[in-house]
Amino acid sequence: MGRYSGGLYSRQTLIVCLLVSFAISLSLGVIIGWFSHSSPSTSTLPDSFLRATSDGDPSISEKIITQIDPENIRTYLRYFTSTSHLAGDEQDRIQAEYVKKLWQDQGLDSVDLQSYDVLLSYPDVNSPNTVSLLDDKGTAVYTTDVQEKPLTDDQADADNIIPPFHAYSASGTPTGVLVYVNYGRVEDFNYLTRNKSMNLTNAIMLCRYGKVFRGEKIVNAQAHGAAGVIIFSDPSDYAMDGTEPENVYPNTWWLPPTGVQRGTLKLSSPPGDPLTPSYPATEHAYRVNPKDTDLPKIPSHPISYGGAYHFLKELSGESAPEDWQGGLNLTYNLGGEFIKPGWAVRMNVSTTNQRRKTYNVIGTIEGEVEPDRYVLVGNHRDAWVFGAVDPSSGTAAMLELTRVFGKLKKEGWKPRRSLVFCSWAAEEHGLIGSTEWVEDKLKSLVNRALVYLNVDIAVQGNFSIRALGTPTMYQSLFDAAKKVPNPNSTSVAEASTLYDQWVRCFPDNVTADPDDTQPEVAALGTGSDYRSFIYNGGVPSCDIRYTWDKFSTPLSSYPLYHSAYETFFLMDKLMDPTFEYHAAVTKMWGEMARNHADSILVPIDLSYYGTSLVDSVAKLQKDYKQLFIDSGVTFAASLDVLETEVKSFQKRIKQFMQEANEVDHTNTLAVRAVNDQLMLLERAFLDSYGLPGRPLDKHIIYGASSQDNYSGMAFPGLFDLLFEIDREPNPAERWDKVDKHLSVLVYTIHAATATLSSAI
Amino acid sequence: MGRYSGGLYSRQTLIVCLLVSFAISLSLGVIIGWFSHSSPSTSTLPDSFLRATSDGDPSISEKIITQIDPENIRTYLRYFTSTSHLAGDEQDRIQAEYVKKLWQDQGLDSVDLQSYDVLLSYPDVNSPNTVSLLDDKGTAVYTTDVQEKPLTDDQADADNIIPPFHAYSASGTPTGVLVYVNYGRVEDFNYLTRNKSMNLTNAIMLCRYGKVFRGEKIVNAQAHGAAGVIIFSDPSDYAMDGTEPENVYPNTWWLPPTGVQRGTLKLSSPPGDPLTPSYPATEHAYRVNPKDTDLPKIPSHPISYGGAYHFLKELSGESAPEDWQGGLNLTYNLGGEFIKPGWAVRMNVSTTNQRRKTYNVIGTIEGEVEPDRYVLVGNHRDAWVFGAVDPSSGTAAMLELTRVFGKLKKEGWKPRRSLVFCSWAAEEHGLIGSTEWVEDKLKSLVNRALVYLNVDIAVQGNFSIRALGTPTMYQSLFDAAKKVPNPNSTSVAEASTLYDQWVRCFPDNVTADPDDTQPEVAALGTGSDYRSFIYNGGVPSCDIRYTWDKFSTPLSSYPLYHSAYETFFLMDKLMDPTFEYHAAVTKMWGEMARNHADSILVPIDLSYYGTSLVDSVAKLQKDYKQLFIDSGVTFAASLDVLETEVKSFQKRIKQFMQEANEVDHTNTLAVRAVNDQLMLLERAFLDSYGLPGRPLDKHIIYGASSQDNYSGMAFPGLFDLLFEIDREPNPAERWDKVDKHLSVLVYTIHAATATLSSAI
Repeated sequence: MGRYSGGLYSRQTLIVCLLVSFAISLSLGVIIGWFSHSSPSTSTLPDSFLRATSDGDPSISEKIITQIDPENIRTYLRYFTSTSHLAGDEQDRIQAEYVKKLWQDQGLDSVDLQSYDVLLSYPDVNSPNTVSLLDDKGTAVYTTDVQEKPLTDDQADADNIIPPFHAYSASGTPTGVLVYVNYGRVEDFNYLTRNKSMNLTNAIMLCRYGKVFRGEKIVNAQAHGAAGVIIFSDPSDYAMDGTEPENVYPNTWWLPPTGVQRGTLKLSSPPGDPLTPSYPATEHAYRVNPKDTDLPKIPSHPISYGGAYHFLKELSGESAPEDWQGGLNLTYNLGGEFIKPGWAVRMNVSTTNQRRKTYNVIGTIEGEVEPDRYVLVGNHRDAWVFGAVDPSSGTAAMLELTRVFGKLKKEGWKPRRSLVFCSWAAEEHGLIGSTEWVEDKLKSLVNRALVYLNVDIAVQGNFSIRALGTPTMYQSLFDAAKKVPNPNSTSVAEASTLYDQWVRCFPDNVTADPDDTQPEVAALGTGSDYRSFIYNGGVPSCDIRYTWDKFSTPLSSYPLYHSAYETFFLMDKLMDPTFEYHAAVTKMWGEMARNHADSILVPIDLSYYGTSLVDSVAKLQKDYKQLFIDSGVTFAASLDVLETEVKSFQKRIKQFMQEANEVDHTNTLAVRAVNDQLMLLERAFLDSYGLPGRPLDKHIIYGASSQDNYSGMAFPGLFDLLFEIDREPNPAERWDKVDKHLSVLVYTIHAATATLSSAI
Repeated sequence: MGRYSGGLYSRQTLIVCLLVSFAISLSLGVIIGWFSHSSPSTSTLPDSFLRATSDGDPSISEKIITQIDPENIRTYLRYFTSTSHLAGDEQDRIQAEYVKKLWQDQGLDSVDLQSYDVLLSYPDVNSPNTVSLLDDKGTAVYTTDVQEKPLTDDQADADNIIPPFHAYSASGTPTGVLVYVNYGRVEDFNYLTRNKSMNLTNAIMLCRYGKVFRGEKIVNAQAHGAAGVIIFSDPSDYAMDGTEPENVYPNTWWLPPTGVQRGTLKLSSPPGDPLTPSYPATEHAYRVNPKDTDLPKIPSHPISYGGAYHFLKELSGESAPEDWQGGLNLTYNLGGEFIKPGWAVRMNVSTTNQRRKTYNVIGTIEGEVEPDRYVLVGNHRDAWVFGAVDPSSGTAAMLELTRVFGKLKKEGWKPRRSLVFCSWAAEEHGLIGSTEWVEDKLKSLVNRALVYLNVDIAVQGNFSIRALGTPTMYQSLFDAAKKVPNPNSTSVAEASTLYDQWVRCFPDNVTADPDDTQPEVAALGTGSDYRSFIYNGGVPSCDIRYTWDKFSTPLSSYPLYHSAYETFFLMDKLMDPTFEYHAAVTKMWGEMARNHADSILVPIDLSYYGTSLVDSVAKLQKDYKQLFIDSGVTFAASLDVLETEVKSFQKRIKQFMQEANEVDHTNTLAVRAVNDQLMLLERAFLDSYGLPGRPLDKHIIYGASSQDNYSGMAFPGLFDLLFEIDREPNPAERWDKVDKHLSVLVYTIHAATATLSSAI
């Protein structure tokens, strides 16, 4: 119906008009309402607020896992293993610059190449290190090879291969009688001097590698007046399938007769540059006199079992005990004399300590929300020779990881927290690059470092993931391993994820309920660059790799460790031809980094700390309770008090984790406060005096075992103090130290528990 | 016009209907638009987000200043001074419980009364400490009074007044010759033994109070073989207007002939409980053997000048040098003999060390936004006797402050950060309550404590505010002083605020432009409870009080310090009858607390740190540059390198403060990151080895002067090492320490600078 003339309108028209008006004005109102609401506050808040209150994008996890490419890892490994790359060498700088350039190209936000001026150690190639067997006229009837015989083309083509040597050995040319000292442990020397009444003064010691850190062997030999030390890799430890060519490299991963293990003699404490303990080796650093360090005072040299054979077969004296006999086809005699009178051994060691520059590369992807929180990802770059296993398998993995993170960043992703990638220098000489850096950055790290994720070797076998870490890392280790498919393994075919394989191969905490079983995570020792992060900085740390079956093949290291036979050939033809094991480790590593960098609530589940400490105290009680009773000691803080304290700790953690999981994600500062508590709990275990007798090891709950620096343990201070205390002639002083240390432990755990409340 | 029958409507009706419809639907739309926008996110965000992004309510500042009531302070002071309240006494617990109850009533969120079991020291009241002058038959011809003669009613009515004694004195009854040793300083003893060749072994030393900490006098005496020490307050230092009754208490604030200064002999390092250095004195703490502490090994006793007169007038020997002559009307002789042959001095000191419980009270108003950030406000409660000045003037002030904060809280105000009020125990014995607490809570404090605001004595004069503090505190000290009216002062009538009076009375940094002049803020020594906060925890700290004119009256303390004459009468009748000076200090203290607790950006202006360090290094250069040149030392880190480093520090601070002031207040995590940097900069100055020779003094930029523990200074380690180095017979070792310490200083300042970037 049309318009009614004379200014009058029908009801229908009215209704239509009203409806239209209603619709228009309602829409207008909605728009006004929307925008009037958003200004002025919403117009400024949404970006930072919405990002801060959102959890990480879960699809990133999937992207990391699918985009890690084994072929790239192979390519990176080929580059790093194409030449020897020892710390302080020209290649140290060249490869550092390569990493810097690559990270820039991959799209990291900033990349720094930074150097420290540190005391390293090298043999004089013009006066090569050798050991000779001399006849009664002083003529050498046998001299060890200067270099390991090339067994593959890549090795033959290389130059600059550093001859076998022991870093930080004293130089010298001692000549003398030879004594076979088995593994060179305290008990081995005790056997010779106490049971056999041998005088070792000025003798040269022939040791087997293994059981204890090589540096300890020199310490023990020095204490017994040795003139020098020779260490060889015995076939029983390094060529377990036999020494025939078909059973050793390049046909298998076992050590051939010409292979020699290089390595440092530097003790684990103080870590890092020997001249600048506790402080970074910068231009203006104070340097101690090298004479005031505890570097070796006598020459030491590593040799092959092929070489050792020539000395052992001429050695006379009483035959060594049954368990001192090794894998060479002869009787191991204790020596002190040769079969032919007047024969002797002469060492010619030219190794000297030298101040050199060495290079870390630090690359960062800046956090979008919390740039002042760091997720640190590290691997060392230096190798004794090619380092195909140690550490270049890890280096290649890290560069593939940064490629994927760089790509994600180019596609628009930004992590909540900063990712910091660290390519460390001079780890092999004694964790030098990472230690100097931690010392340099400590004042920022202690407040801001969330976790340190280390991969030294990525692949040293095909059996399972093996992890070391603090209990603060367990949950994220397990979570990441559950997300990554296991490489096609012939050993345990059914395992579909790294976790499945891991928990089957290395089960820990075995309970009646198999669902409660978790994979073993061993405590951190001082074997790689995590050492200063955890034991100086209190930064939760871990180290992962793919490893061999230690149950069927109980080795202290893979056989070609630190030899010139750690080649690309070894990895490409024998150990991981598809690079799928490399890729698997890289994926797990990347997922851990993403999880820590991107989750709104940091993925630290403290429950494992409670359980670990309760279990460790139970073990203490089991091992030592009776000893305490028998000794009649009455301490302010007994083992029972410690037990009560760790149980309170565990109880408080349970409450705290519940509160943490319920925190309101829109309350950014409440989330930050909880995250700080999760991050900083590990710091609470640092004590400014450190472990008894180890003042630079500040973490007093976990530390390296004094018996074996490579492995870690809970309550190392207590175990040290209680070790053979019942054999101590005057134990009161030692018990007094136990009293004091127990009290510090109780205080520390109590104070750590208190940090889980926001109130003081 | 009305409705048109037959379903037709006029244009006017239509327009009205349309307008009404438009209005209604527009409004509806606005409402829908508003709410559709705000859900789901806004419905959860506003409270925490809006609060977190708002600055503190400025009206609170005004409320604090207007509501602080001098009459209440008088009432609190009367309570605390109504009885002697020495640490470890029954009154210690009773007054702690009073504070606890009061704080609960005042409305604090939580109040804890917590005790530590510490080694304190008391005389045996059944065998009172005395010093006697013996004639040649061994008969006492004079014996000092056990107690100070009551001079006012409040004193006369009190019981439990601890007789004058020196805490931690050894007990004993030495008898021997008396030697006058002036102030008992190193140079005083050197004069006697070197210039005068006196043998001091087994003699009793008579010292004047003043110039150095009394504990140092005992150390020096002990080193010279003294059998005991007697310390008296000389009129020249404590009764400068004369000793006649009208010139001394109770007619003036000067010390009467019967007044005695009590005090501890405990050295400042290690601070706190002598038996538990570095750790809290809890039930399970390890305690060192008292024999292994450095507490005094000889008896010591304080006496009045009225008493000292009796000994000095009988003393013969050579007369003391001009500047050793004191204010008594006689010639001060060096002694070693008496006028009458065979006379001697006998001390009878029954003081023993005793384990006692002592009580801190900790009251908290929880922060609404950042409960894990603490603004700490503290004062000690224990006094030698009534403590009307030291510390009860401060205690009364703190309780009035908590009353006002409690009232504000009841009215709905909540601070952004937590306010923590601390009533410390056993400060007088050696900062014991605060030190044990800091050691106990250190692991939380280092990450969370924003500032520590100390008032020990609130009022010790009517001249001006006097402040001690780290440069991190300067801005908030000045800002608060500018907000508080100055009490009606007769000395400088024009001053309208505390700041105006302060800058006029104690100008610092005097420049050509008077507007650039700022009030003096001296460095913190170890004279009160801030010591462990700043020098163990690295928590920015300050101490304020109203003081006398030190220029016209150069005293080392107010005259009645630590005597039984520190009564309510003294304060109420002589020192602050209106309590306006108390109120003024309370207002300034409260405004500082509010400012730190409530400002969105913490009120720390780091610029003062840059300036202070640049000035301090300029002073080092001025004092020592030539010495370095003359000594021919070549260090990795020279004074020039230090100078370059502090200039970089200053430059970086300038940039950082600009960035900090421009940070987007709606980005809560960006604000928190900046606040963390502001809070934690002071921590960066802690070094785990501490100052050279003072391992527990971790702050290596500021510290107590070794010459006088009460006062503080920049670069105390360098000054210690360089002190009289040119007189050292074999200076190489000392220069080596200078080399090392300079290098640590350069490293530390460099690392502190680096914390001002969020990147690593």
